[in-house]
Amino acid sequence: NRPLVLIAGPCVIENEAATLRCAERLMTLVNGVAIPLIFKASYDKANRTSVTSFRGPGIKEGLRILKKVKESLGIPVLSDIHSIEQVQPAAEVLDVMQIPAFLCRQTDLLVEAARSGCVVNVKKGQFLAPWDMENVVGKLVASGNEKVVLTERGASFGYNNLVSDMRSLPIMRGFGFPVVFDATHSVQLPGGQGGSSGGQRQFVEYLSRAAVATGIDGIFMEVHEEPDKALCDGPNSVKLDDLPALLKKLKAIDAIVK
Amino acid sequence: NRPLVLIAGPCVIENEAATLRCAERLMTLVNGVAIPLIFKASYDKANRTSVTSFRGPGIKEGLRILKKVKESLGIPVLSDIHSIEQVQPAAEVLDVMQIPAFLCRQTDLLVEAARSGCVVNVKKGQFLAPWDMENVVGKLVASGNEKVVLTERGASFGYNNLVSDMRSLPIMRGFGFPVVFDATHSVQLPGGQGGSSGGQRQFVEYLSRAAVATGIDGIFMEVHEEPDKALCDGPNSVKLDDLPALLKKLKAIDAIVK
Amino acid sequence: NRPLVLIAGPCVIENEAATLRCAERLMTLVNGVAIPLIFKASYDKANRTSVTSFRGPGIKEGLRILKKVKESLGIPVLSDIHSIEQVQPAAEVLDVMQIPAFLCRQTDLLVEAARSGCVVNVKKGQFLAPWDMENVVGKLVASGNEKVVLTERGASFGYNNLVSDMRSLPIMRGFGFPVVFDATHSVQLPGGQGGSSGGQRQFVEYLSRAAVATGIDGIFMEVHEEPDKALCDGPNSVKLDDLPALLKKLKAIDAIVK
Amino acid sequence: NRPLVLIAGPCVIENEAATLRCAERLMTLVNGVAIPLIFKASYDKANRTSVTSFRGPGIKEGLRILKKVKESLGIPVLSDIHSIEQVQPAAEVLDVMQIPAFLCRQTDLLVEAARSGCVVNVKKGQFLAPWDMENVVGKLVASGNEKVVLTERGASFGYNNLVSDMRSLPIMRGFGFPVVFDATHSVQLPGGQGGSSGGQRQFVEYLSRAAVATGIDGIFMEVHEEPDKALCDGPNSVKLDDLPALLKKLKAIDAIVK
Repeated sequence: NRPLVLIAGPCVIENEAATLRCAERLMTLVNGVAIPLIFKASYDKANRTSVTSFRGPGIKEGLRILKKVKESLGIPVLSDIHSIEQVQPAAEVLDVMQIPAFLCRQTDLLVEAARSGCVVNVKKGQFLAPWDMENVVGKLVASGNEKVVLTERGASFGYNNLVSDMRSLPIMRGFGFPVVFDATHSVQLPGGQGGSSGGQRQFVEYLSRAAVATGIDGIFMEVHEEPDKALCDGPNSVKLDDLPALLKKLKAIDAIVK
Repeated sequence: NRPLVLIAGPCVIENEAATLRCAERLMTLVNGVAIPLIFKASYDKANRTSVTSFRGPGIKEGLRILKKVKESLGIPVLSDIHSIEQVQPAAEVLDVMQIPAFLCRQTDLLVEAARSGCVVNVKKGQFLAPWDMENVVGKLVASGNEKVVLTERGASFGYNNLVSDMRSLPIMRGFGFPVVFDATHSVQLPGGQGGSSGGQRQFVEYLSRAAVATGIDGIFMEVHEEPDKALCDGPNSVKLDDLPALLKKLKAIDAIVK
Repeated sequence: NRPLVLIAGPCVIENEAATLRCAERLMTLVNGVAIPLIFKASYDKANRTSVTSFRGPGIKEGLRILKKVKESLGIPVLSDIHSIEQVQPAAEVLDVMQIPAFLCRQTDLLVEAARSGCVVNVKKGQFLAPWDMENVVGKLVASGNEKVVLTERGASFGYNNLVSDMRSLPIMRGFGFPVVFDATHSVQLPGGQGGSSGGQRQFVEYLSRAAVATGIDGIFMEVHEEPDKALCDGPNSVKLDDLPALLKKLKAIDAIVK
Repeated sequence: NRPLVLIAGPCVIENEAATLRCAERLMTLVNGVAIPLIFKASYDKANRTSVTSFRGPGIKEGLRILKKVKESLGIPVLSDIHSIEQVQPAAEVLDVMQIPAFLCRQTDLLVEAARSGCVVNVKKGQFLAPWDMENVVGKLVASGNEKVVLTERGASFGYNNLVSDMRSLPIMRGFGFPVVFDATHSVQLPGGQGGSSGGQRQFVEYLSRAAVATGIDGIFMEVHEEPDKALCDGPNSVKLDDLPALLKKLKAIDAIVK
């Protein structure tokens, strides 16, 4: 029952300057509330709604930028991987390797990620029950890696909508590994804008407070200086300016329930 | 943004002695944590899964017992009504008249309840979106009663399961009336035991903490001295002994978010 | 495994002339395809989305009109009841007494309807699993009435949407009573237009063909001469002119699967 | 509106002899009812529930066996691919390349499959609305391939359950490409047996009749000589002996609606 950790950063690496600036801002903010930070950014958005959406700088350039963040600021970094070929290079930079929700049952990817020795954070598929994640954990542990993290990011609820079942957090914690709530993807409206996903930024605060109140290990949020100008997932990203007030409340709630 | 209120009591009035004993226990407990109490108990369970299930003492005897609770202990009482004929006698005793979830769109019942002048607490149907409750509010207000309370008790999620969408709490609060989270019906597994509903008492604590963290006006819980011996809804009732620790946490969370 | 029956008529009794005209049109149409008809119309819409929606002529005038349809055309009539007080007068006119979906678990209403000796058609609640309907059947049979019909009209699927799970039809048929598919309420979008429910008339044909292909006893459809001018449920009503072509296909499919 | 096609075969290639025997049996059966056959079998089950589940012979041996089926029996073959590296070798053997449901939004996989020139059959993700598949089609067409097929295999409905929304079939057909109903995965209970998925074979007949009645282009079924001995997806596979009677009905229904 250690204090809450924050995993945050932009949805996608837009460019080196913006990424570093965001990481620095985040460091300053979390220092103010004494919450440990893991910096998150994706080098490739491999499953955007539309083929013409912005995908990021690619693995090589992306890992270079993440390495710079890590070394210049001294913070751990997290990114997501999409194929077994990416595991090796990613492992050289990342502290936490993340398995995207749609890929959370792809056995080879899980096994290869586990073998890298990295911490592996698996996002729970929108199509899975919380207890189904125990089989996912089993694939990692059977591959010799017990540094497992599980992340809730909403379950399919009819069409173009997700619901956050708060029961899933204690259920998954019952497997014995840290559990994170992804407060920004949970408010996505998948495909909700036709050619891209919509989002309900206004609910991030409510859902993150609710999730932390159940007693969790980390909170995950995509942030942006100006979410409405973000190249990916703007509708559900949190404005950096709004973060400190929210984090203060989360920390206070966390202290009560732990 | 006034402090949290507790609505609590046994699912059904089992008999006079047990009901009074429960109310007294509750009063003592809430005094310890300084949370206002509204005592809740049903005189008739009108939609049990099976025709042979225990239904309660009926309206006449039930209202007599509730009146005794109210007068001897000086606490407001709440019960649910199921037909327009019940409104008049119920209004003579009850402080809050509750509309069951399945009946939340029955226009005549809403209008008649509104006209009684009582506070009317409407449980959101498991089949309704949070924003649909604005039309329900409209039926009450158009009947001249603005003493409206709305209660979330879970939404249908596949078969024999409910999910508590925490977004519904701020959405319904946006209508301008107090919002309550029903933490024990939200963990029901409707019809989950074949001839009766199952329940997941172990999640009451998590969901109630989560709901209070979003910022609500009241928390609703069915309680029992020995839930496993309850004549109705035992699987999702909270043991009275477990209540003080939970209430203390809820009050602390409530203070943070208001 | 007797041939398919059609239950059809306007959502609500708009007035005597329109109701009789609709019933006559329907009789002519079904004679052309040799499908038995039960005429359906509601005298009161007791749970409209908004308090200002049109509700119908009321029970007295409504039953008078239904009696006229029944006697002048010689066809059985069906309508829905909403309280135990309505059972007695309704039983004097109706051949089939229908329990609305939201009320399908109200024990007193089921028991009273059963005791009338009428055929009782219960619509499955949007919040119920198909197997839960066995307890509903139990309430009727325990009250001495085995003339039971069960109707599927869609299950809650996220917000403002219903899904027709075709598995429910063989599951409910397994209880030993006739099963009907309500092809027009199944395409409702509950509350989907804010102050009233939307509907997807364009899917009635597909869903009714699908349901009949599973092997059912009856098909239920709300029809109107000019659906866009209907006073209730227009968006999901079938235009009378479109009915003959659809019925011909349904009859042909029914013959294959029985 | 050409007549119905059957896509069928074992879930996984268990060995060469069993695969050939199954293909021969299928050929004989479909000749009896004059339905064109595409033979389906997987060389690798890449996302089994458990890490210890049987996965198949792998791509090299699997494609060798599929080639043998294709050449010795003269029937087109279909299999699923899981990474861009598999596209090239698979394209040398397969007539139809299938994208698994969990991977239906992985842009690189879709683009690479499209570029192979093969027919590409995409299974709709359990987490997608039918209209979301138009963006998937867009990824293929933008890559220069219009030989697209879309397959419905059920949508997430609460936990460990899928529902087949028959509306999705006409919706997806509206995009202008052939639509297939996967009648055996649609009756899966994902993760329903803890360490593996359960299934409801008894509903395959009902759902396939329903889907064909909406008017579709193909029906997909996993079959086995002895489903209870199958190494994968036995609980939802169809017994070969039961196929002819079912196909005869499907063909008759198809003739009525086209």
